[in-house]
Amino acid sequence: MAKLGKLHLTQGSVSVTKHGPFELECGRSLPHVTLRYARYGEPDEECSNVTLICHALSGSARVDQWWPELLEKSFDLERECVICFNVIGSCYGSTSAASLNPETGRPYGGSFPQVTVRDWVRAERIALSELGISHVRAAIGPSLGGMQAIQWAVDYPEAIDRVVAMGATPLNAFGIGLNHLQREMIKLDPEYRDGDYYDGSGPRAGLAQARGLAMCTYKSPELFDIRHGRRPDRKGTAPWTSEQGRFDIAGYLEYQGKIFWERFDANAYLAIIRAMDLWDPQRDWDGHAWERIRAKIQLWGMSSDILFPAADVRAFARELREAGVDCRYEEIVSTHGHDAFLAEPEKLEGLLRDFLAEAPPPASLRAAAVAESEGELA
Amino acid sequence: MAKLGKLHLTQGSVSVTKHGPFELECGRSLPHVTLRYARYGEPDEECSNVTLICHALSGSARVDQWWPELLEKSFDLERECVICFNVIGSCYGSTSAASLNPETGRPYGGSFPQVTVRDWVRAERIALSELGISHVRAAIGPSLGGMQAIQWAVDYPEAIDRVVAMGATPLNAFGIGLNHLQREMIKLDPEYRDGDYYDGSGPRAGLAQARGLAMCTYKSPELFDIRHGRRPDRKGTAPWTSEQGRFDIAGYLEYQGKIFWERFDANAYLAIIRAMDLWDPQRDWDGHAWERIRAKIQLWGMSSDILFPAADVRAFARELREAGVDCRYEEIVSTHGHDAFLAEPEKLEGLLRDFLAEAPPPASLRAAAVAESEGELA
Repeated sequence: MAKLGKLHLTQGSVSVTKHGPFELECGRSLPHVTLRYARYGEPDEECSNVTLICHALSGSARVDQWWPELLEKSFDLERECVICFNVIGSCYGSTSAASLNPETGRPYGGSFPQVTVRDWVRAERIALSELGISHVRAAIGPSLGGMQAIQWAVDYPEAIDRVVAMGATPLNAFGIGLNHLQREMIKLDPEYRDGDYYDGSGPRAGLAQARGLAMCTYKSPELFDIRHGRRPDRKGTAPWTSEQGRFDIAGYLEYQGKIFWERFDANAYLAIIRAMDLWDPQRDWDGHAWERIRAKIQLWGMSSDILFPAADVRAFARELREAGVDCRYEEIVSTHGHDAFLAEPEKLEGLLRDFLAEAPPPASLRAAAVAESEGELA
Repeated sequence: MAKLGKLHLTQGSVSVTKHGPFELECGRSLPHVTLRYARYGEPDEECSNVTLICHALSGSARVDQWWPELLEKSFDLERECVICFNVIGSCYGSTSAASLNPETGRPYGGSFPQVTVRDWVRAERIALSELGISHVRAAIGPSLGGMQAIQWAVDYPEAIDRVVAMGATPLNAFGIGLNHLQREMIKLDPEYRDGDYYDGSGPRAGLAQARGLAMCTYKSPELFDIRHGRRPDRKGTAPWTSEQGRFDIAGYLEYQGKIFWERFDANAYLAIIRAMDLWDPQRDWDGHAWERIRAKIQLWGMSSDILFPAADVRAFARELREAGVDCRYEEIVSTHGHDAFLAEPEKLEGLLRDFLAEAPPPASLRAAAVAESEGELA
């Protein structure tokens, strides 16, 4: 456990299966599950200073690596504590398809079970308990991380005061369709071998393509026009001078694909986009999910997001308010599309700091949530 | 040559290489090029009644098969003549990668040269001459067909009075990026074999994926939400009850992919999307393309188009007007995205009929164009 300068970083792994296998929503179970985590600062005795950050698709527990500005500028890590877990199925240290299946002694590969955002959150709940933390002042996340933050408020209303979810709604048909195609791209790669590829190179080309497609939805057409337009590949031949020549945007997507397969695992990618597709708390709770929420919520839309359009996030905020949730909508005006949460941290910092400084939900609401939760456990 | 009821259909093929090989923009040439065409009605003696329709990516010369309502309702085929050519490289009867290369006696396959919209239009110009037609009252096309129609007005200003281009601008970086990915999908399919697959099954899976991605850009997210939403596959298992289950949009995209590879050739697809990427008349004419135009032009945008956004079409119309072109912009309000030109013909018919009934450009302009053209030929 190394402390990293002013970040006060502690890293570790925590088992969530000390008392038995981890039962998944899909009906299958995992005998051993560990979650990799990163903690910045220390919790106080009442755990009144802990914020949970949930990472997006390709992130890890190391918030300082993907959200350094936000971590440093929205939190005082001398006094506050921030914690982030790597999700089950991801390739940054938690149990995943690359882990050894104790029944076979070989990596799970294609046999790794389907996981959901709800599974992730339940595992995180257990892991937090193991770390002595029963309550967080806020759960914050962009994209898939926002789904987790909202799921926390639905499943464990007594444990959470505030939620900030950026660019997150149940995925629309367009997004589900594109995830379907990304899955097909990976599976068509001859190196995929039904997911059992850990003794080979893995489906690099398929994963690179999938990432390329995803990048087209993380950025905005407007940003692509500014950055690439119809210009020729900056490192190659112009498409109009040679049949092998190409446009700059093609070189960019190829580069993004390459740096992605160098750092990410295809099975992890498949597991996580499936969880993204499936996220739908109202279905889990027979249409009564939102009524369970006691936390104050902020949903942030990115004005040029084509994957989780700002209009959809705004409508989602309205849906929550109509169900009685204390929910506000904020819009980040940016040409950076869905990735505005990464590309424009300076637009998030103040907004986030102000929200975290607001009073928590009334004590009566919190007490009711605790009582309900105890009733469910009884 | 069969006449088909009230459509007065004549079909045939015409060679454009009677006087020598067809030189392509890429620097290579094709020794034999024939264009498949469909003609509806008969040209009058002065050819004053001929309209050229240009097909989009996956269309053919048979306008009655892809635009039946428009053909019947916007034209009086007793008095007017409509003609459409299948483009070079397409798989509906014109010379393409599937044609025999006279040098080898085998299909061109992956060695078929790169073709451009400009090549297509020049071939059509020769083919029309062979058919005795030197002038058309209008060139009309959706999408890639609109690119051709505009190219006609640039390259052969003396030959054309009016242009209607629907959902067509030089492709933006977002579209070029998605075409790049579609190309990669086809090439990753092990059955692609560098394009020399005519003795095998061909890259069906890759082509199906490419089509699926293209469909996501031809429709609109709004339409997908209405038609598919987050509903389970209408013919399969719900994604939340089974790890193999999926959403309706996935079933839809798979079906669209399947019916596409049953009817379309992957090499043709690759050739045509490359031509789409490359279309840029201003580059061809050193920034003076628009000044050459003598035709009256209408550019139509589809309000929910994400591939050729309405705002881009509107800006393109402004660019043409600023270069002195008689150009108007019309917007088709529709949730059908880019495909509104196919899905909502009733919104196009009247607009088209009215435009075709307008007076042609002033005789002085036309005479100037003819004189200029003769100057160039001299």
